Amino acid sequence: MNKLEDIVSLCKRRGFIFPGSDVYGGMAGTWDFGPLGVSLKKKIMDEWWRFFVEERDEMYGIDAAILMNPKTWVASGHTATFADPLVECKECKSRFRADKIADGINESVTTEEFLNTHTKCPVCGKENWGPIRKFNMMFSTHVGAVLPDDDTELAEKNIAYLRPETAQGIFTNYKNVLDTFYPDLPFGLAQQGKAFRNEISPRDFILRDRECSQMEIEYFVNPKNWEEQFEDTRNMQHEFLEKIMGLPKDKIHELEVPAEDRAHYSKRTIDFMFDYPNGEEELMGLAYRTDFDLSNIARESGKSMEYRDKITNETFVPHVIEPSIGVERLFLAVLSNAYMEDEVNGDKRIVLKLPENLAPYRFCVSPLLKNKPELVIKAKEVYEILKKKYKNVTWDDSGNIGKRYRKQDEIGTPKCVVIDFDTLEDNTVTIRDRDTTEQIRESIANL
Amino acid sequence: MNKLEDIVSLCKRRGFIFPGSDVYGGMAGTWDFGPLGVSLKKKIMDEWWRFFVEERDEMYGIDAAILMNPKTWVASGHTATFADPLVECKECKSRFRADKIADGINESVTTEEFLNTHTKCPVCGKENWGPIRKFNMMFSTHVGAVLPDDDTELAEKNIAYLRPETAQGIFTNYKNVLDTFYPDLPFGLAQQGKAFRNEISPRDFILRDRECSQMEIEYFVNPKNWEEQFEDTRNMQHEFLEKIMGLPKDKIHELEVPAEDRAHYSKRTIDFMFDYPNGEEELMGLAYRTDFDLSNIARESGKSMEYRDKITNETFVPHVIEPSIGVERLFLAVLSNAYMEDEVNGDKRIVLKLPENLAPYRFCVSPLLKNKPELVIKAKEVYEILKKKYKNVTWDDSGNIGKRYRKQDEIGTPKCVVIDFDTLEDNTVTIRDRDTTEQIRESIANL
Repeated sequence: MNKLEDIVSLCKRRGFIFPGSDVYGGMAGTWDFGPLGVSLKKKIMDEWWRFFVEERDEMYGIDAAILMNPKTWVASGHTATFADPLVECKECKSRFRADKIADGINESVTTEEFLNTHTKCPVCGKENWGPIRKFNMMFSTHVGAVLPDDDTELAEKNIAYLRPETAQGIFTNYKNVLDTFYPDLPFGLAQQGKAFRNEISPRDFILRDRECSQMEIEYFVNPKNWEEQFEDTRNMQHEFLEKIMGLPKDKIHELEVPAEDRAHYSKRTIDFMFDYPNGEEELMGLAYRTDFDLSNIARESGKSMEYRDKITNETFVPHVIEPSIGVERLFLAVLSNAYMEDEVNGDKRIVLKLPENLAPYRFCVSPLLKNKPELVIKAKEVYEILKKKYKNVTWDDSGNIGKRYRKQDEIGTPKCVVIDFDTLEDNTVTIRDRDTTEQIRESIANL
Repeated sequence: MNKLEDIVSLCKRRGFIFPGSDVYGGMAGTWDFGPLGVSLKKKIMDEWWRFFVEERDEMYGIDAAILMNPKTWVASGHTATFADPLVECKECKSRFRADKIADGINESVTTEEFLNTHTKCPVCGKENWGPIRKFNMMFSTHVGAVLPDDDTELAEKNIAYLRPETAQGIFTNYKNVLDTFYPDLPFGLAQQGKAFRNEISPRDFILRDRECSQMEIEYFVNPKNWEEQFEDTRNMQHEFLEKIMGLPKDKIHELEVPAEDRAHYSKRTIDFMFDYPNGEEELMGLAYRTDFDLSNIARESGKSMEYRDKITNETFVPHVIEPSIGVERLFLAVLSNAYMEDEVNGDKRIVLKLPENLAPYRFCVSPLLKNKPELVIKAKEVYEILKKKYKNVTWDDSGNIGKRYRKQDEIGTPKCVVIDFDTLEDNTVTIRDRDTTEQIRESIANL
């Protein structure tokens, strides 16, 4: 059973996620969040913001523009190195990411190495390849008054990129925050926002899309105690993933990235891997980025990125611990972890066992029968009471009660509250539990 | 006094808004929100979402991708008509928006009309102009494996745009929502997200930027009663702006847009104008878009956009009422309305009289003196109590108490709580009010 396919299907059927530009036949690598997806995504992002920013005194929020001065990507290294190996079939002109269609090679493959793999074109079956070329994954555009027939030089001068990561929007604001808030070390800057990567072949649902949302923290520390801060950050990430997102410890695997596989700026990286339906995949990364970014910015901008300790008067460029997480990756981890199929009274059931703090709705309120006005009126009263108290409450009077339970199970509503004829007598309702399917009677006053 | 300049200065000084890519000399038309700006922006957006989506049963959220299938912009008319008149000085090669440098002409100016205005180049002073050309304001990019030296045809085939409005991300999902939630008319879809416009000359701080956030609702109605729905929507917008955002009624002016000035799709439009520091400017728009968008999508996609009434079985394409607001425009309305200069004990004071629900911090907690450990310890206790209860609480022990009040006034904190030696005796604190500057004593237990 391919569980990822089942989840994609549920997402579309119940309005969590639709393919992007669906009505026009789609737009590869983009996805649109429907009403329930927006709700779940928003709760995930709000919980992250509360846990990592609002509840901590040394954290500051940032919301930088997506379009940045192109010097940003020169300094960060993206202009030179943020590229995948592209290869073209000379017969049918199809293009591929070389390391994805041939075995035993990686992103730094040479033309010779690739030709030695004797790979056949996945489209036409021939073996007639052009050279390996570096394809930069940043989307480029032109800012300002550039016309389609302008010469290359003018166009080149006005080029800009959609940010491939939110991190640089943080680093470029480090000095602004230093000069307005005078924080003591350690302190952190946090940002949530969109990032764009022009994947040659987007795939795996929302895991490898062209447009995603990131939640990143750059935590500025004294280089003397980076190891201690790295450990603290690591523990805090586990606490968030397990306690707030409800992900089980045994599905999260730390991968200590060996020196030869680490990004050039990192002195230590741990990838947090998650057991997704289609296998183990990266959920988030934790990197010790040293002073790589701030020093590059200082060089490219000519401005000092030094921090002066208020007590010792020591000056230095802070080092950085970076926990970085993709919202869509976390969304899919939460959703796939919650997705279960079981049997209730001999019938197959799909249920999303989402944690209460993340479920799109906490309660569903229903009249037992739709065509009995006295039940509908009473149910509406209960609905209004709960809605005032809990905000996320939904109303359902479609189909019969069994069908409503199935639907609420599929969208992860923890409790269904049903108003029946007994309610009219004694002001009690049936509360049906999503996970156990057990039903209890409770008085309205106690809800 | 140019109050806008004062607000820009406060925004930078106190960490509300910094120029985008500031460290690299900027990126025209982009702005980065600093820690206090993120907080205010988030509260504005969250209040909108609560008021218009979460508290209403007939509203559904959408979060569509920024990159959309290019057919979207053919159907919507943006490919053909979303353009400004561009003119180039043949002497110094500077480019301008023609209607902004010459008097008495508008966006549809012809070359002849422009030459007749005998405008001189604002840069070199000469009068030697090229023809008026249409400059499309959509940022374009290429999606997928397109290389810089690829031929025009291949590049053309893979062109995509950064969405110039969030509205089309809603319209393209209308059918998805219809097919998954079966809503009755009227119902609405709401979206918050980024939109991009390649302004030839960005200006007026965050009022005319190249990257902005929008909050839009497309409200689908039976064409028979669009007028009634239009009125309801209009009233609800006023309620939001006045009661939730705290904007005074007398600074909001409705402008009934005459037929000849309306967008081609609109049968009625009201622009909500606001008294900004630099004059009256559009804050938001309310348009009756008829079935223009859904009918265009039906034609371009070949799919039916019809709605079937569950009771009468009547089928028709719903009509649309659209309230549309730019987050940055609302942000500046709230900020400039709150900004005041007055005198306290003979000293000039800057104060942000932000409503309590929007202020970045509700309380600031301070020890009267920083170098008295017993005061600091007691103040930290009070800080923890308030932080647990109200989340948005800040700590300030910098400078002297007078300076702290000035700073908290400037960032709009409604109440300062000060712990002094009396606190140690009787567990009371001083609460100082931002607007009146009055101080009262209150017991900690009553906070």
